[in-house]
Amino acid sequence: MEIRFDEHGLVPVVIQDWNTGEVLTLAYANEEALARTRETGELHLWSRSRQELWHKGATSGNVQKVRALRLDCDGDALLALVEPAGPACHTGARTCFHNGEADVFAPHEAIPYLTRTMADRAANPTEGSYTNELLSNPQLAGEKVEEEAEEVVRAVREESDERVDEEAADVLYHLLALLQGRGHTIGGAQEVLNGRRR
Amino acid sequence: MEIRFDEHGLVPVVIQDWNTGEVLTLAYANEEALARTRETGELHLWSRSRQELWHKGATSGNVQKVRALRLDCDGDALLALVEPAGPACHTGARTCFHNGEADVFAPHEAIPYLTRTMADRAANPTEGSYTNELLSNPQLAGEKVEEEAEEVVRAVREESDERVDEEAADVLYHLLALLQGRGHTIGGAQEVLNGRRR
Repeated sequence: MEIRFDEHGLVPVVIQDWNTGEVLTLAYANEEALARTRETGELHLWSRSRQELWHKGATSGNVQKVRALRLDCDGDALLALVEPAGPACHTGARTCFHNGEADVFAPHEAIPYLTRTMADRAANPTEGSYTNELLSNPQLAGEKVEEEAEEVVRAVREESDERVDEEAADVLYHLLALLQGRGHTIGGAQEVLNGRRR
Repeated sequence: MEIRFDEHGLVPVVIQDWNTGEVLTLAYANEEALARTRETGELHLWSRSRQELWHKGATSGNVQKVRALRLDCDGDALLALVEPAGPACHTGARTCFHNGEADVFAPHEAIPYLTRTMADRAANPTEGSYTNELLSNPQLAGEKVEEEAEEVVRAVREESDERVDEEAADVLYHLLALLQGRGHTIGGAQEVLNGRRR
């Protein structure tokens, strides 16, 4: 399918985080910006306010590596899946969509949030934080993962839906902490699962 | 922050799946469409091709319940987080962004994909499918969750990053199967994790 540019020679680009799925920015590209994106592997756009080619992050250093470009059903919108080197928003916020109901958290945001929180706790240990206790005690983190695994199995066998959700949440939380304790995230496991698609 | 409509009285709306984080559609809304969205809780848009108010899914039945509306940093783009009753695309595809590199899978797409695959396997059992074996044998699924939990703990303690990823993937896969065997998904656990944010 061909890209259908609008009367200004532009196509809107929804920019989404490759790892977390968060929508970062809605921006616009022309043919030149797309050509530069394909040549360099880094996102290039067209700035409508400045009326110029815009290498995203050229000034701030927060470039965005493009992992996939998808086109919609009628060819007039692009989805760019990117790995951002830093905040996407000029305000310093991670995503541009930080107004309105930004504190109403969606299910798909839970694991990315927890992953970020744990990396932050690892970098800035907090007195009395249970997460920090797990991060500094791999033995404990391991025991908890095994214990919570047993508990979710029991909950699925004989307890309420609410208990199942609680115990599955505990497994996820402790698994993420176990991984973070090794400086690792769940991203690698997600890539393994993708690689197993047939 | 106020919404800044363009010269046609429109604002672009990035439509994202509340549960999975998948970007479904890029569409447009005017003031009336937003007012109807707020009144009804279902997504209303402005069809640029038909030049009319568009209650998404009114014909197909695939309405989209709006869970959150977010506005970007300069007020000229909206993010609508929705629960879709069915496919978002008029082609019957789940998302409109199914052209281009739609087969290059992002990490954030792994769990949603696996969740859908397992629901499909539950509805349409496949001879020789390991997933179906787990779905029909909760005892086995439970044993595997506990076994894989032990294995990821061991991997984190003494094995390579690749082994850690493999074992964490096995925990996720078997946990999703265990939940699906009860007709459940990981969504509830993600909501529990969101509820624990402080």
